Amino acid sequence: MNDAKRAVVLLSGGLDSATCAAIARAEGFQVHAMSFRYGQRHVIETSAAQRVAEAVGVARHVIVDIDLQTFGGSALTADIEVPKGRSVEAMGEAIPVTYVPARNTIFLSYALALAEVIESWDIFIGVNAVDYSGYPDCRPEFIAAFEQMANLATKAAIEGDRSLTIHTPLIDLTKSEIIRSGVDLGVDYSLTLSCYDPNSAGEACGECDSCILRRMGFADAGVTDPTSYACP
Amino acid sequence: MNDAKRAVVLLSGGLDSATCAAIARAEGFQVHAMSFRYGQRHVIETSAAQRVAEAVGVARHVIVDIDLQTFGGSALTADIEVPKGRSVEAMGEAIPVTYVPARNTIFLSYALALAEVIESWDIFIGVNAVDYSGYPDCRPEFIAAFEQMANLATKAAIEGDRSLTIHTPLIDLTKSEIIRSGVDLGVDYSLTLSCYDPNSAGEACGECDSCILRRMGFADAGVTDPTSYACP
Repeated sequence: MNDAKRAVVLLSGGLDSATCAAIARAEGFQVHAMSFRYGQRHVIETSAAQRVAEAVGVARHVIVDIDLQTFGGSALTADIEVPKGRSVEAMGEAIPVTYVPARNTIFLSYALALAEVIESWDIFIGVNAVDYSGYPDCRPEFIAAFEQMANLATKAAIEGDRSLTIHTPLIDLTKSEIIRSGVDLGVDYSLTLSCYDPNSAGEACGECDSCILRRMGFADAGVTDPTSYACP
Repeated sequence: MNDAKRAVVLLSGGLDSATCAAIARAEGFQVHAMSFRYGQRHVIETSAAQRVAEAVGVARHVIVDIDLQTFGGSALTADIEVPKGRSVEAMGEAIPVTYVPARNTIFLSYALALAEVIESWDIFIGVNAVDYSGYPDCRPEFIAAFEQMANLATKAAIEGDRSLTIHTPLIDLTKSEIIRSGVDLGVDYSLTLSCYDPNSAGEACGECDSCILRRMGFADAGVTDPTSYACP
């Protein structure tokens, strides 16, 4: 495998994207990680992204400042309460308020720009449609449509002799399968942060949808959860 | 026509987007204009966008700061010379260095986010594939692919009973046809700025591809060009 093969990996600092980055590395890619400060209340996740990027051994870590607060419309960027203590069934009933309008479309668009500039044909995103299929922009049909669009969008796509691939190695995995994959690849999950509403000490709340799915994932995988939860 | 029908209109401050905004208004839309400071050397175009927005009578004008300089790769955002004095034939030979990686993909992604938040199903973009078809993300097949992707990307698209439409009213028009349409709608082109490389006084250079196409457009349309060119 060619060591110079470059991939852009979207890295939030959470469990999924850390595993995704490790998979990209294991597949022989030189990883160019990309994170966003987008006005999220849990901006501390970019610190987690930096820790993960270092541990994975990325070639470069780009942190992009974008302002999604201008639009509002989400519990992650506006003054809307993050839901706590919900059952997995309740999570699946409707797209939750933590949905951020067009977020993955915007993230992937930036990744596309970076990919073109560094002459990469591979973008990795750790979306997952099994344990939690509420978000429209985590579904396989969205990813396929984005990939098709991307292959018409750029100078590289028009002039190059290759196609851009959006890799979604986690899309069909359960949370516990993701964790087991990551453990096999040596991912240190103590570096990651999944919580939507961490406290000022950086501790996960333990009660938001993301924390609940994470806790259940570790339990199901039979792996000790290294996370420090404010609410055990 | 319902006066409350809202549209997001991408507004650069140039001739095309000003015409596009006037068309959206004429079609009865309440216009939510969106412009970008993206590290372009001709950032003065956002002043033109503000003048145009006011003249068109928009409901709101959102100016978004994004950093495409992080990626570079274009004469508009990096230290690469803007080509001057080229023939139209030369312009058509290859995608020019003024191409910005994934720019329209990123712009449309933000427009999609704003559209979802304001409950709009209509985005207008003044792309044009006739006089100047060098940019991959100005072509009808790109726009169609983006529209398809957008209709899978958002909560609104999943839960709503309508589809999002990307309107490209200029896509099949020549520059002179665009100008004549705009004149019919009362567009004041003296407010607009098309130049890629204006001087510090805000004067158009008169020699870049964009200026040359603009000058030829006014000449072909038989309309007096109100532009102040540094190089007449």
